[in-house]
Amino acid sequence: MTDVVALLREALGERVDTSDPAVDAARADKSGHRAAGRPLAVVHAASVADVQTTMRIATATGTPVVTRGAGTGLAGGANTGAGEIALSVRGMDRVLEVRPDDLLAVVEPGILNADLGRTLAPYGLWWAPDPASREISTVGGNIATGAGGLLCAKYGVVRDAVLALDVVLADGRLISTGHRSVKGVTGYDLTALMIGSEGTLGVVVGATLKLRRLVPGETRTLTALFPDVRTAAAGAAAVTAAGIQPSIMELMDAVSLTAAHALLGLAPPTPGATQLTVQTDGAAAAHEQTEIADILVASGGAVRLAADDAEAAQLWAVRRAMHPAMETLGTALIEDVSVPRSALPAMFDEIARIEAAYGLTIPTVCHAGDGNLHPNFIFEGDEVPAEVWRAADDLFRAAIALGGTLTGEHGIGVLKSRWLADELGEDQWSLQRGIKSVFDPAGILNPGKVFSPQP
Amino acid sequence: MTDVVALLREALGERVDTSDPAVDAARADKSGHRAAGRPLAVVHAASVADVQTTMRIATATGTPVVTRGAGTGLAGGANTGAGEIALSVRGMDRVLEVRPDDLLAVVEPGILNADLGRTLAPYGLWWAPDPASREISTVGGNIATGAGGLLCAKYGVVRDAVLALDVVLADGRLISTGHRSVKGVTGYDLTALMIGSEGTLGVVVGATLKLRRLVPGETRTLTALFPDVRTAAAGAAAVTAAGIQPSIMELMDAVSLTAAHALLGLAPPTPGATQLTVQTDGAAAAHEQTEIADILVASGGAVRLAADDAEAAQLWAVRRAMHPAMETLGTALIEDVSVPRSALPAMFDEIARIEAAYGLTIPTVCHAGDGNLHPNFIFEGDEVPAEVWRAADDLFRAAIALGGTLTGEHGIGVLKSRWLADELGEDQWSLQRGIKSVFDPAGILNPGKVFSPQP
Repeated sequence: MTDVVALLREALGERVDTSDPAVDAARADKSGHRAAGRPLAVVHAASVADVQTTMRIATATGTPVVTRGAGTGLAGGANTGAGEIALSVRGMDRVLEVRPDDLLAVVEPGILNADLGRTLAPYGLWWAPDPASREISTVGGNIATGAGGLLCAKYGVVRDAVLALDVVLADGRLISTGHRSVKGVTGYDLTALMIGSEGTLGVVVGATLKLRRLVPGETRTLTALFPDVRTAAAGAAAVTAAGIQPSIMELMDAVSLTAAHALLGLAPPTPGATQLTVQTDGAAAAHEQTEIADILVASGGAVRLAADDAEAAQLWAVRRAMHPAMETLGTALIEDVSVPRSALPAMFDEIARIEAAYGLTIPTVCHAGDGNLHPNFIFEGDEVPAEVWRAADDLFRAAIALGGTLTGEHGIGVLKSRWLADELGEDQWSLQRGIKSVFDPAGILNPGKVFSPQP
Repeated sequence: MTDVVALLREALGERVDTSDPAVDAARADKSGHRAAGRPLAVVHAASVADVQTTMRIATATGTPVVTRGAGTGLAGGANTGAGEIALSVRGMDRVLEVRPDDLLAVVEPGILNADLGRTLAPYGLWWAPDPASREISTVGGNIATGAGGLLCAKYGVVRDAVLALDVVLADGRLISTGHRSVKGVTGYDLTALMIGSEGTLGVVVGATLKLRRLVPGETRTLTALFPDVRTAAAGAAAVTAAGIQPSIMELMDAVSLTAAHALLGLAPPTPGATQLTVQTDGAAAAHEQTEIADILVASGGAVRLAADDAEAAQLWAVRRAMHPAMETLGTALIEDVSVPRSALPAMFDEIARIEAAYGLTIPTVCHAGDGNLHPNFIFEGDEVPAEVWRAADDLFRAAIALGGTLTGEHGIGVLKSRWLADELGEDQWSLQRGIKSVFDPAGILNPGKVFSPQP
């Protein structure tokens, strides 16, 4: 194995990092999961050529490669273990081109989502895929997982916002998928195939992104407090059913809301109370806010309209406190099921059933505008207890039965791979494995992820 | 070969059609191209089970199958020849489910695009992919080619508007890709992979479509007459560059405009004059119309605002006369290149160069809002002359060099397969062939299309 590191060093010099901190950091992401064993080295790629060199050496030596960005994944997809090279593209963070006239930008994968947003804003442009992690997560990671975020119902998912990709293949060859035009149907859509492929098909080294004009006008925010989570979920579904499209609609259940209030030093909410926080934008923001308020009042909610941006920021601070608030309760396994919006109340019934059946607390936050729920399984210690995995298994099956999926935006990684075949069926799972083999015949691209039978 | 038909008849009875009219019709689409030889039979599938039965027999006997809808393709992709089964799903035209609360519909592939629109309108819903052929083309064909239409710049392409697909594989197994939720990143995006795959990976037998609410308010229409095509293209590009998004923006060059006027009995336009026709919609339609008018006047256009819907219909009638008007000039090979919007003037320069170099007339209509051009190569007779193919070759290379593609929405089929590797590069072409082999190891799904070296 020393030979591989020696070959990398010979070709890439100081970009090859075997220091303890770098190697240890590459074992983990933000899921709480950590790879067994330590990677051989971290390669800090600074160019497409660096990535190609790394992949050529990996292919020549049969060494597995795990591509990493900022390491903010929530499914263990970028965790790198024994005998593997961690290929970091975090340093490839340039914006190569911004074209307001064609509504596109060409970027390297390592740029942070928020940094891209700040680069585009002076042009009056933005890239819509907007994960909650945008200040710490990369565009490449967003593409690799199909991460999305809060705005997907109104502004689309990652697949809708990428025109073309530059990809280094397992053996170091470079291909360019897609094109710079709005339309194009030349053969199979490999751009879409790469999105969400979690480093198993190639290394994304460049992306041509489809941009939007910044939405003119101001945003409006309201909250609605409901006596229980099911009523709140029904209220959110009623907004969608009424044909109104908020830009963001977030639900916090009672345990989440109480924990967030406690963390922020706010008065505790009414026991059992669940909150929706809703943002509208664009020319009709104020009108839509009124319409949504009427629907939520009719659904049993107590509505508060933010008078100004400062008050809106206060209301959103509660939602943003969700993850740190969960850490005050114990260790959290953050799940990511997604269901059709009309099925939100039924999905919350399932969560309540699972809480009772397994004796667990599962505080849940939900992108209610698009039906994506993040149930947090709270436990003590570092290892996910078997009982929690059994409850999660129950949760995944419930979401699939409601027409949904076991992951809306976090990906499969290593933590959910044992359920992949349940959702896809064996036939489709085998086809996907076949595609993987076409791109990676030697099986060196992120092996053991996505398709592995057991985390 | 008689055995195959006998097996089909035994299993499917009268759904197996060997009549001369049916078999002859299956040889052609709307491209003007016709397959050599006659198919074995046309199977008029009425159910998923019929499709599965057909594919099982095809696999057992090694018989090629070409899936067809309404036969309105423009690249020969569904043309069925000697020794092949034409599998028609045109009769599978039911709307199985409409869910306004989840903004989705589940349909069979054979429904016409316009019939789907008429079914959805009473719910206040529509499906955005809206080809010009919507009255005669099917949803399944729209998905199989990634056809799109006039509204793509504002309302997205087919890939953005399909949530899930039911697909019968080459050996008759049925898989379901995607899900009913807005988000979902479970493994590779086989839904996107199927879109535009032109019958080479499987048979789409059901589709879960992502719907939109009907856009409230009225539409506004204007035309702008320019002294030449380059000025008009620059005007269209200026609209996009100014950050205004019309719902439709169509360009007709001088020859097209003159022919359409002649067909409709209108006074001939000024020689050389090129016309933009622009529609705005939504709450800001009137305001955007004014903004666009100002930009087009500043770009050298003579603008006419439609006073009402009746006048707007008159203006659009000129654009709609394009294809019949071309038929008055001779036989037309309708091409389909697409470029970034800022490159539209440069692409028209290339068309003028090619016209001069090859001594051809190439009247061109263009979806100027999204950069998709349809140059019509006019010639006499039924066979495309070699000189026209040489000029088309020149055209394709020019579009690719400008960052575009040789097909924006018609697909590769048989007519463009010899240029596919030029655009993709040999490495990506080989990967796509590899994917094809995973889905269709025996090579019975639409063989000779997309990847074939020569039409």
